[in-house]
Amino acid sequence: MIQPQSVGIVAPLTAHFSEALKLRSGGVLPEYDLVYETYGELNAARSNAVLVCHALSGSHHVAGCYADDPANVGWWDNLVGPGKPLDTERFFVIGVNNLGGCHGTTGPRSINPASGRCWGADFPFVTVEDWVEAQARLADRLGIERFAAVLGGSLGGMQAISWSLQYPERVANVLAVASAPKLTAQNIAFNEVARQAILSDPDFHGGHFYEHGVVPARGLKLARMIGHITYLSDDSLGEKFGRSLRHGKAVYSYDVEFEIESYLRYQGDKFAGHFDANTYLLTTKALDYFDPSFEHGGNLAAALARSSADFLVVSFSTDWRFAPERSREIVYALVHNRRNVCYAEIESAAGHDSFLLDDAHYHAVLRNYLARIKV
Amino acid sequence: MIQPQSVGIVAPLTAHFSEALKLRSGGVLPEYDLVYETYGELNAARSNAVLVCHALSGSHHVAGCYADDPANVGWWDNLVGPGKPLDTERFFVIGVNNLGGCHGTTGPRSINPASGRCWGADFPFVTVEDWVEAQARLADRLGIERFAAVLGGSLGGMQAISWSLQYPERVANVLAVASAPKLTAQNIAFNEVARQAILSDPDFHGGHFYEHGVVPARGLKLARMIGHITYLSDDSLGEKFGRSLRHGKAVYSYDVEFEIESYLRYQGDKFAGHFDANTYLLTTKALDYFDPSFEHGGNLAAALARSSADFLVVSFSTDWRFAPERSREIVYALVHNRRNVCYAEIESAAGHDSFLLDDAHYHAVLRNYLARIKV
Repeated sequence: MIQPQSVGIVAPLTAHFSEALKLRSGGVLPEYDLVYETYGELNAARSNAVLVCHALSGSHHVAGCYADDPANVGWWDNLVGPGKPLDTERFFVIGVNNLGGCHGTTGPRSINPASGRCWGADFPFVTVEDWVEAQARLADRLGIERFAAVLGGSLGGMQAISWSLQYPERVANVLAVASAPKLTAQNIAFNEVARQAILSDPDFHGGHFYEHGVVPARGLKLARMIGHITYLSDDSLGEKFGRSLRHGKAVYSYDVEFEIESYLRYQGDKFAGHFDANTYLLTTKALDYFDPSFEHGGNLAAALARSSADFLVVSFSTDWRFAPERSREIVYALVHNRRNVCYAEIESAAGHDSFLLDDAHYHAVLRNYLARIKV
Repeated sequence: MIQPQSVGIVAPLTAHFSEALKLRSGGVLPEYDLVYETYGELNAARSNAVLVCHALSGSHHVAGCYADDPANVGWWDNLVGPGKPLDTERFFVIGVNNLGGCHGTTGPRSINPASGRCWGADFPFVTVEDWVEAQARLADRLGIERFAAVLGGSLGGMQAISWSLQYPERVANVLAVASAPKLTAQNIAFNEVARQAILSDPDFHGGHFYEHGVVPARGLKLARMIGHITYLSDDSLGEKFGRSLRHGKAVYSYDVEFEIESYLRYQGDKFAGHFDANTYLLTTKALDYFDPSFEHGGNLAAALARSSADFLVVSFSTDWRFAPERSREIVYALVHNRRNVCYAEIESAAGHDSFLLDDAHYHAVLRNYLARIKV
């Protein structure tokens, strides 16, 4: 058996687009940069391109690491590489940071050409559909007419689904992992608490905190702590942390007593140290808004009738953020349209986070599906 | 059929205790007041007393309303009254606000006799066991040697369980509704985020905000919003709010767009307007600490061997905060000890909040169990 390999040292690229992009929100981006990475080689027929779409806190950095930062490994490195399920010996893989992001692509930290200052809270609302539009322009730039596959987990899966609706002729396969056709009220509720934590942080300064030399770290930390609880299952938190007490017994203090408290605070602080609060707000709103069935009176099957791609839908048994039931809704709507769809419900204790993990069954499903794609 | 009646106009009473109370945390309350209400009449044999223990945001005001505030109806009014499941024609029912509370009982808003200022964050940590201890002193004061029943929902159920362990000879029946023998890591995680929201609010002032003429309303609001999500089921949020948009379509703003956002903000603001932040912190810690199995190496059956009461344990199918599985742990541990235990798992869409609602099956179970209690 071939030892799974890494794509090794990678470097991000930047594509500048000077043609204005009209957004669903009514806003316009007069020009913008998209930062992206590629792994593998585009074949002569330009038929082996695969687009990987990122979720809330992801980026274009899908695989490999940076020469000057070898510890910074791509978020889906276990999946993408030579001999890995998404095999870079066969596929030309692209990761792109979405508009409104904070990893190099034009976003709230970028300069608003109209004001000469950071966009901040004035950055226009962006939607899944806008991201797909921008990704399509990048595909044009790279000479890719049709993707062999578009895939993603969570919010990334929503982009993959949207590709099949906005550009049905440009995507042969959609892989939607741990995704949903739209958020539930509970999903929106968690996003709303996270947003209120940021918006009510006095250091947010109405979204123009850059000019005040501060960041709304308290709000971002709380938002990330809430997120982390929902990414993991009750069982996995129980297995990892249970009721373990740092000092072996209660010490009656608001410092860390239970290990789960330490974990959440650490994750929250780490995130608040690098992620942009406006990007967090914009991205949770993009999640809330996504609903291809909306213009079809809530009828998902009617919405998905536009798609012509083959689908692989994957869910995880303990994912309560994007539960298997939500994936099944996608499957049923596709079956209703007589589309080719494979569905795998993976037994995993790790909750929503499972889509990032190296689960043998999960990776076998992806490997087998991707191996059958003709390029 | 007798029309269910209210206990009508009620008035809180105050009992002052001048004997110091040693707390599990090592702290001492030199003296304290307990505010309580009673409904029905204590019989000559003093054998018909029932203690109702409150949960996180509850109080002594269990039933009826106040002459000067008729809209302020007790939190379990649908359960307690003449002809109701907890029939005040038969039982003498007591509700008591717990130590550390903010409804009249000595708590962080009270004056610390040592300093002459509000206790604030200096109020000692209190535990479920401390609350039971204080409740037992109130029972002494009222001449009640043995309760016909001690009951409560959620954290109230934990107190009822603890009664059977601290004073097995003083409680004939325990009714633990939507409760758990201890919190899971996920439960603690949600409490921790709520605490961090309060502790990190600049208006918290290290717990001494009273002296600054402010309250940490942002933090309390967030804490309550998080709580509300966990009190309701995904399904009930979906049924109540779904993806209903206030303006019928996306308007791309951080103001209320989805109705669920409006609901959470309203609940958060309302709560922040009256509840005490230090009480919230103390109460979530009491929840986290409760674990009668801790001193028995995690063996709940060994812990419950001390109890001699008969038990009714009730859970709700969609309660994911204190799931049916947690109630079953209590049941199994009691069965292991050959105790009399009835268990009802109620089909309800309303999640944890079900214990406060007037569900016909749920109330029938309580009515029948309570009717069989001899007084």
